[in-house]
Amino acid sequence: MADWQVIPGNVTAPRGFKAAGITAGLKPSGAPDLALILSETEAIAAGVFTQTEVRAACVDYCRRRLQKKGSARAILCNAGQANAATGEQGKRDAQETAERLAAALAIDPDAVLLASTGVIGQRLKMDALCAGIAPLVAAASETGGDAAARAIITTDLVTKAIALETTLGDRPVRIGGIAKGSGMIHPNMATMLGFVTCDAAVSTHLWQQMLTRAADQSFNQITVDGDTSTNDTLIALANGQSRTPAITEMDAAGQQLEAMLVEVCQYLAKAIARDGEGATCLIEVQVTGAPDDAAARQVARTVAGSSLVKSAIFGRDPNWGRIAGAAGRAGVPFDQARLRVKLGDILLMDAGQPLTFDRAAASQYMRDIAANSSSTAADGSLIQHLDQPLAIAVDLGNGSGTGLAWGCDLSYDYVKINAEYTT
Amino acid sequence: MADWQVIPGNVTAPRGFKAAGITAGLKPSGAPDLALILSETEAIAAGVFTQTEVRAACVDYCRRRLQKKGSARAILCNAGQANAATGEQGKRDAQETAERLAAALAIDPDAVLLASTGVIGQRLKMDALCAGIAPLVAAASETGGDAAARAIITTDLVTKAIALETTLGDRPVRIGGIAKGSGMIHPNMATMLGFVTCDAAVSTHLWQQMLTRAADQSFNQITVDGDTSTNDTLIALANGQSRTPAITEMDAAGQQLEAMLVEVCQYLAKAIARDGEGATCLIEVQVTGAPDDAAARQVARTVAGSSLVKSAIFGRDPNWGRIAGAAGRAGVPFDQARLRVKLGDILLMDAGQPLTFDRAAASQYMRDIAANSSSTAADGSLIQHLDQPLAIAVDLGNGSGTGLAWGCDLSYDYVKINAEYTT
Repeated sequence: MADWQVIPGNVTAPRGFKAAGITAGLKPSGAPDLALILSETEAIAAGVFTQTEVRAACVDYCRRRLQKKGSARAILCNAGQANAATGEQGKRDAQETAERLAAALAIDPDAVLLASTGVIGQRLKMDALCAGIAPLVAAASETGGDAAARAIITTDLVTKAIALETTLGDRPVRIGGIAKGSGMIHPNMATMLGFVTCDAAVSTHLWQQMLTRAADQSFNQITVDGDTSTNDTLIALANGQSRTPAITEMDAAGQQLEAMLVEVCQYLAKAIARDGEGATCLIEVQVTGAPDDAAARQVARTVAGSSLVKSAIFGRDPNWGRIAGAAGRAGVPFDQARLRVKLGDILLMDAGQPLTFDRAAASQYMRDIAANSSSTAADGSLIQHLDQPLAIAVDLGNGSGTGLAWGCDLSYDYVKINAEYTT
Repeated sequence: MADWQVIPGNVTAPRGFKAAGITAGLKPSGAPDLALILSETEAIAAGVFTQTEVRAACVDYCRRRLQKKGSARAILCNAGQANAATGEQGKRDAQETAERLAAALAIDPDAVLLASTGVIGQRLKMDALCAGIAPLVAAASETGGDAAARAIITTDLVTKAIALETTLGDRPVRIGGIAKGSGMIHPNMATMLGFVTCDAAVSTHLWQQMLTRAADQSFNQITVDGDTSTNDTLIALANGQSRTPAITEMDAAGQQLEAMLVEVCQYLAKAIARDGEGATCLIEVQVTGAPDDAAARQVARTVAGSSLVKSAIFGRDPNWGRIAGAAGRAGVPFDQARLRVKLGDILLMDAGQPLTFDRAAASQYMRDIAANSSSTAADGSLIQHLDQPLAIAVDLGNGSGTGLAWGCDLSYDYVKINAEYTT
């Protein structure tokens, strides 16, 4: 199926991109906290942002920039302070940050996009941030993607990064991405950030459409308890440096590019979901038989986000009733007499009624998935495996719409993390 | 303000009602599990039911009855089996149950309404249930309300019951109610049930309108994590035995009756929210400054249902950022620069920005509320106090709409209960 391959690297895998990540002193921990993604040439830029009314200054800043000018040269991201609930001063700080970076890069300030993650209600530490810009720009390189991936994380247990390559005509085209976020929610740091780079040539309007559709099939399918952040941001740049013909409509090349963009976004979204606070496994919910794809995604998201389903999975309980209950309240019409529910390969419910199934085997399936869900690298770092999620399949018997959503289980540690944290 | 007083009793406090609760052998525990509420004369009947697509047989049964005939004589409620996901056999069981009770009472089967709570996917234990009907009918009395309140609960820590009396013209009019449910969610037993009786004379159409509006201001404001049950049911009977003039429009008497109905429903809803799994206190969220009341209720419900807010309260952390974040994502437009957030009497946030406040005092306020939130009666039973909820006030600065919602905090015990339960 997939007409692409995984290649090393991430946002600097596509041609003509550099990146960097440094410690500017924004995080109290002293961990890396300032990242730059830079296109050598003006790149088409698209964005998807949080829908909340309580937004960080950088979100409004990027929205305005993208409306005014659908292209950019640089993305600057800080971690430590969210610059949300900071009023007029927050807006001025964002503007000044962009101008400082633009000056250091000798580019138009309007070609700078911004993202922040960290504590809500805290202003950017402007002195440290501005002092960090020169060394950040100096550090930018074609191998700087990993450093950028590290600098954007906050409470994440792992960095999230990927790059894919396909061939359009006879030339390679690449998409790379990095992301941060915990699949569930984190106090004042719930932000999900995603940055995608691409060296295809594509029209501004089409690139935005592709990104919006990709977000709907990926990042928007992991908003597991609805606690949308003030700072959620997904930005994608396409700089045309692959020297492939410009894609201006959804022809074969356009479809291939979009499919690869969806794959990159889904990988990053799954990595965020798997990294949920206290989570022991990634859950993938596949819904079929819905009136349309959007309805299927809605049901999938509701099941993946149900606290009841999530705690049952933590308890390794093959609880079909909770899955059916979540599907039923998702707001999508169906006839309950046609409902089917599967866990892995085990059919739990058919024609709206529970079946007699091997409960021990179903529970063992859940334990096995969790046991194989992560491992430790030689250097002691955590590796999370996304290829074998705990699979829930729901068929509504009411159409041909399909959709996926992802989440993680709900453990004691979730409450512990979120109750014991103090602002 | 309130033009009524609390009186002893509950569903049998209004004239012309009897009730009973017995052990029929439906619950494995041997606790009371079969309840009857009976009007001596045909009563106007209104209902509000779960909106989910996966519904118990009794829900569809009641909907059909109320469409066909807006009156009833009896409500039969069992606890133990939900009769949900039971297919055609479940429908036949519901029908047979109604016919058996009608025969025992010598009334029309269409005058019987049904409710069930318990394990999804399990049929009613028809032998035990049918055998219980004769003793249940024999036990019905004007003092049977408490027994009925006990027989409808499942995992509730306390029964929920109240009665209010007002005067219309120069005659007393009463409304009583009982309810069951845990404020958060319980595995396969998430059901919220409410039964209300009234001795006013009121037109069918108006009574249904009043009940729908009352539910919107009470039970619908505690669906704290959206895990709507297959069996949620609210039924209200009005039998006219107060001999007051029939209320057929929203005149002064109509408004007085509706206000009292809202009060009864809000008391019962708060009691359910307070009884949440693992909860240590009741949370009341008041939203003002919304475009309209429905918008205000939506924001209030979102704040009260936020896992982040709930776990912060369990941690006694005055986390204004989580409250503002939940308000922002509720889907109601407002200008964040006008947002105000209060905790008790302490202003945490104004004009969209955090204030410097006495953090220790705010945390102490939260501890005090929780400490006074329950006590133990002389007989060892738990008493939950609803009069001093933990108060969160949010003003959006965008209109005159107001609304309330209730919830409880999110504790370790919530996950424990929901993960360790096995189907």
